[in-house]
Amino acid sequence: MNRRLAAATLGVAFLALRPAAVAASDLDRDDDAIIQTSVINSLMIGRYDGVTPVADLLRRGDFGLGTVDHLDGELIILDGRAYQARGDGSVVDAAGTTTPFAVATRFDADGELPCPPSRRLLDLESALDAALPQRNAFVAIRIEVDLEAVTIRSVPRQEPPYRPLEEVSKSQSVWTREEVKGTLLGIRSPAWVRGLTVPGYHWHFLAADRALGGHVLDLRVRAGAIQYDVCREWEILLPDSPGFDEADLTPDLSRELKRVESAREPSPTE
Amino acid sequence: MNRRLAAATLGVAFLALRPAAVAASDLDRDDDAIIQTSVINSLMIGRYDGVTPVADLLRRGDFGLGTVDHLDGELIILDGRAYQARGDGSVVDAAGTTTPFAVATRFDADGELPCPPSRRLLDLESALDAALPQRNAFVAIRIEVDLEAVTIRSVPRQEPPYRPLEEVSKSQSVWTREEVKGTLLGIRSPAWVRGLTVPGYHWHFLAADRALGGHVLDLRVRAGAIQYDVCREWEILLPDSPGFDEADLTPDLSRELKRVESAREPSPTE
Repeated sequence: MNRRLAAATLGVAFLALRPAAVAASDLDRDDDAIIQTSVINSLMIGRYDGVTPVADLLRRGDFGLGTVDHLDGELIILDGRAYQARGDGSVVDAAGTTTPFAVATRFDADGELPCPPSRRLLDLESALDAALPQRNAFVAIRIEVDLEAVTIRSVPRQEPPYRPLEEVSKSQSVWTREEVKGTLLGIRSPAWVRGLTVPGYHWHFLAADRALGGHVLDLRVRAGAIQYDVCREWEILLPDSPGFDEADLTPDLSRELKRVESAREPSPTE
Repeated sequence: MNRRLAAATLGVAFLALRPAAVAASDLDRDDDAIIQTSVINSLMIGRYDGVTPVADLLRRGDFGLGTVDHLDGELIILDGRAYQARGDGSVVDAAGTTTPFAVATRFDADGELPCPPSRRLLDLESALDAALPQRNAFVAIRIEVDLEAVTIRSVPRQEPPYRPLEEVSKSQSVWTREEVKGTLLGIRSPAWVRGLTVPGYHWHFLAADRALGGHVLDLRVRAGAIQYDVCREWEILLPDSPGFDEADLTPDLSRELKRVESAREPSPTE
């Protein structure tokens, strides 16, 4: 939350509707914290065993995304409930499982923005870049959205010995659905988080009927309403295990991560 | 704190004397948190204005190191008191100032080790590497030490427009003192923290008479007693200012940082 944030604008269609609230000045600004379990490089090299109970995460955040134990799909935390979008497309409750990597926050909106119609995910992200200039903070973004189309993926449950994430993602399930309403959950992280979390935008989607969800590869937005929460506290929980301590997490896997997180399929607009 | 930490050993001289305590299993393991204000790249590019009151840091940690507003010396937090080792060598109370970059924790020893006699700082660090294998966690290290010699530096107060840290460090004051007792305060960070904090060991020293202190470049240890605290929670507080948001913190300044943090002078053993 940025007290000094000027009203975010993007032409006429993109106006901040609410003034930013006042942040606490001390170090206990828990509501502005991004809580993260483990680091992304640990997931990249194939450490898929859950290390943090999702129930613990829910005590610190009501909004977030990640994956679950054994990489058994995509984790979505929305309004304090945890959902798991599995590799077969089904969405189940995830409160009883654990996670090897997830990012969550207590979503406390600092402002609202109308959502511009967007033919591609990149167009939506460009509009958000222009409206939210806090590039060295984290921003949680919630969009109640009416989609003409969305392309999402999930991954199938893995068994040890685990293969690296880039290899596993080659067997991901990818769906494009047309005419669907629901919630886009995004976390935008600073560019300098390399190896620790996903730099830039990371989007998951959960349909309004809770029957469809996953990691967003692309979309076409008809309309929507955006809320954002600027977070200036970043708390990383490191797993307590000899396996984690022995792992070499230093390689630069940025390019592999980008391939894992981005679209391989043609855009739904093409 | 690593519950599964095997007794740390380094030959006969390097034995863990106390078993590790039991960690809380939830996300509120505050005692095991490294609290950090801002990121090291912000300091590297010359952002020396204090952003966090040292008094706020003292509420979250009783042990730590960093610098102070205007880069006016080295910050040392020991037993809940904050000291500032200024560029002229004097040590003054720092509780009333602010810091642009500091790292602190509530020091809660997980174990103790005898301190091996060491002819160089690197020898001491090698011994610690062998005894403390948690390379993907943070470790706070406190050594009550009898030094044959120590080479420390501090930096003079800067005024805007600030120059980058590597340039400023060329005008640092460096002292070698012989026969001095006091406390070595070290934070060992994982190798993958690049751009965010100092990878590997970062040492400050405060003499027993509180009349001398600074950033340690080298030393010669006669004897000492080591306590260590393994920290698996890393909390970064990002400054809330347009200046911080506009700064480009993405360049890889690892080599410059290493030059800033390491010895330029011959070792006191040479």
